[in-house]
Amino acid sequence: MKVEIVVIGNELLDGSRTDEHVAYLSSHLTALGAEVVRATIVPDDPHLIENAIRGSLSAADVVISTGGLGVTSDDRTKQVAARLAGRKLVLDEPTLARVRRRFEDRGIPMPEINISQAMVPEGARAIDNHHGTAPGLLLEKDRALLFVLPGVPVEMRGMLTDYVLPFLEGRGLRKLSQERLVRTTGIPESRIAEIVAPVAKRFVRTEIAYLPSRSGVDLKIVSRAGAAEDAGRTADDAAERIAELLEPFVYARGPEAIEEVVGYLLTMAGRTVAVAESCTAGRLGWRITRVPGSSEYFKGGVIAYSDDVKAALLNVDRATLDAHGAVSEQTAREMAAGVRAATGADTGLAVTGIAGPGGGSPEKPVGLVYVAVSGPADRVSRFRFAGGRDAVRELAVQAALELLRRTLLGIADE
Amino acid sequence: MKVEIVVIGNELLDGSRTDEHVAYLSSHLTALGAEVVRATIVPDDPHLIENAIRGSLSAADVVISTGGLGVTSDDRTKQVAARLAGRKLVLDEPTLARVRRRFEDRGIPMPEINISQAMVPEGARAIDNHHGTAPGLLLEKDRALLFVLPGVPVEMRGMLTDYVLPFLEGRGLRKLSQERLVRTTGIPESRIAEIVAPVAKRFVRTEIAYLPSRSGVDLKIVSRAGAAEDAGRTADDAAERIAELLEPFVYARGPEAIEEVVGYLLTMAGRTVAVAESCTAGRLGWRITRVPGSSEYFKGGVIAYSDDVKAALLNVDRATLDAHGAVSEQTAREMAAGVRAATGADTGLAVTGIAGPGGGSPEKPVGLVYVAVSGPADRVSRFRFAGGRDAVRELAVQAALELLRRTLLGIADE
Repeated sequence: MKVEIVVIGNELLDGSRTDEHVAYLSSHLTALGAEVVRATIVPDDPHLIENAIRGSLSAADVVISTGGLGVTSDDRTKQVAARLAGRKLVLDEPTLARVRRRFEDRGIPMPEINISQAMVPEGARAIDNHHGTAPGLLLEKDRALLFVLPGVPVEMRGMLTDYVLPFLEGRGLRKLSQERLVRTTGIPESRIAEIVAPVAKRFVRTEIAYLPSRSGVDLKIVSRAGAAEDAGRTADDAAERIAELLEPFVYARGPEAIEEVVGYLLTMAGRTVAVAESCTAGRLGWRITRVPGSSEYFKGGVIAYSDDVKAALLNVDRATLDAHGAVSEQTAREMAAGVRAATGADTGLAVTGIAGPGGGSPEKPVGLVYVAVSGPADRVSRFRFAGGRDAVRELAVQAALELLRRTLLGIADE
Repeated sequence: MKVEIVVIGNELLDGSRTDEHVAYLSSHLTALGAEVVRATIVPDDPHLIENAIRGSLSAADVVISTGGLGVTSDDRTKQVAARLAGRKLVLDEPTLARVRRRFEDRGIPMPEINISQAMVPEGARAIDNHHGTAPGLLLEKDRALLFVLPGVPVEMRGMLTDYVLPFLEGRGLRKLSQERLVRTTGIPESRIAEIVAPVAKRFVRTEIAYLPSRSGVDLKIVSRAGAAEDAGRTADDAAERIAELLEPFVYARGPEAIEEVVGYLLTMAGRTVAVAESCTAGRLGWRITRVPGSSEYFKGGVIAYSDDVKAALLNVDRATLDAHGAVSEQTAREMAAGVRAATGADTGLAVTGIAGPGGGSPEKPVGLVYVAVSGPADRVSRFRFAGGRDAVRELAVQAALELLRRTLLGIADE
């Protein structure tokens, strides 16, 4: 089944907003085994909308449009759809009743203008909107299906889940492909490719995508079922084998973030943690506490941006700072031990580094970062990150969480 | 000048990635007065790429494609472009020399496969790539221009700035529209609309867009020049008038983030600041230190997630915690004063609240947040935020920075 997407909205083509509908729709449609062969973004102009929808209807089995519904945009997409299908607009009583009820529920009379929302092309199916007033539409033209959905994300997503996807399943779409995720950190994409490529071809009808980001490289494994193969088993086997090969660098075999993994390990071990942050200035604490319930194991920490604070609140020795500097293995170790003592946590995790753009020197260049852990074992790692201030700081946070993960699991350094 | 964009990449139509090229290109092209009339996203398939580019070339004056260049994608877009223009690929010596030099600079011999990158359609202009090896291309077909750019963001953006936009200016595009930004926080969009709408129509050929986000509501003012009007002056007048009307809520009249404004005010006042964060757990420190050079005025802080840390490191009175709780005006005030004393900063800024999903009660519901400042004046504000854990925490950070801004400027509370 070939699908095309038509996204309507001026704000997407004048730089005001980044479209997110294409990615959202694609991900759900691809999971059902449909193939998205084109997405078109057009302004809120009847002529351009009509061209785009007509072009897509002639090339695909299913066309999904978003936007240009609702009273403020004069229901442009609905009128275009009616014209394309050669139908006139008629009043849909159930929709009118539903729109009227929505207003009654809020205790306000329905404005006259909203009656227009209950007008649908003759023969079209109105799709209920549980999050707003404008209904969606389903029309057939020749043998292609056209779904007309609103542009408001919560409304569009609701209709997709509650109507469009079930309808397409009814037309025979099945979850033919199975996805698995293997998340790594601390190993470059090129090295992963060298390790994974030789075994990748063993897995039939399976594609492996490398998705690098500041948290590391994710491997997305997509297996499609064939006559003789079960997609789920093939995907499981591939994920299993790949995770084995990349073992010490794999922090999750699913969508979990590393802070969730670390939170789970801390909870299992009954340990608490505190952070001492120099260059990351709170980002590490923020990441750890993104996990609901993290107050069970996270005590807090110190943002030690200045040497004074490192000495006063973390008890870093002035002699250490003088002899080795704030960005050094020794300072990192003392910060980790210091925050552990100051907060009473079982484990201290520290980051110190030079995020730039200023502050670098030949011996200590921008991007130099030390991360240290104190308890259950004492460990320190040194990194040289690139990519600018924010990148260096985010990479440092990920490296700190990874050092904590390895320490809690007793994984040795490379 | 009508422009169409063709974005190429499998990962954009299978849900792996959200496209950001359309928004980026649109924003730069719109600013130059061009009209983006369609953007098409297609997978990395020669047939679908060819259809998309051919369709766009027949409808627009300028077509810009991104992606499908480079050795791993077999230079598909280049081959499609050559076929569409009826040209054969020939070796471009300057490009070959440039690619070879890039490898030499890294001390590695150029792989044979990279020679293909120096092949360009006969008569095409190769566009230098300062951030990678694959060159861009400019071809003319009939009267339309086709720019073929790489998909790697830094490479695409470099070529756009260094070649495409100057070229289009050479073809007569002028910055006919002028944009101004007025950034507000702490006032809802509906209230802004009530205040702004009555004066908005006074400004000819001017559109005002409201862009709400977690940092507040930005107003984007776009004025287009007419026969008698100067777009720059109209945009300035409109921005001036709107900023006056929204006065105490306006933190920037340009793209600056609130942490940059606060950094500027601290620098001007010769003051230093430290943070005490409970529910935001480091996000406030991170935001303040996103500004390069912030170490001049930011001393650090304490992430006081637990009551023990509030008492031990911030000297919050146990009696206060017992009588009023960790989320209270009194605790917020003591945290702000405590971090100021502990770090030796001139100003202390504190946040305490209930981010959820757990921890709420009828008297202290999820979303309740107090922010307090200590020095130069002592102030505290109370908020009730909605939208989930991350939203509550980000809204709290913005509210804290706004309280600091108002305190530094001596703006009274509403």
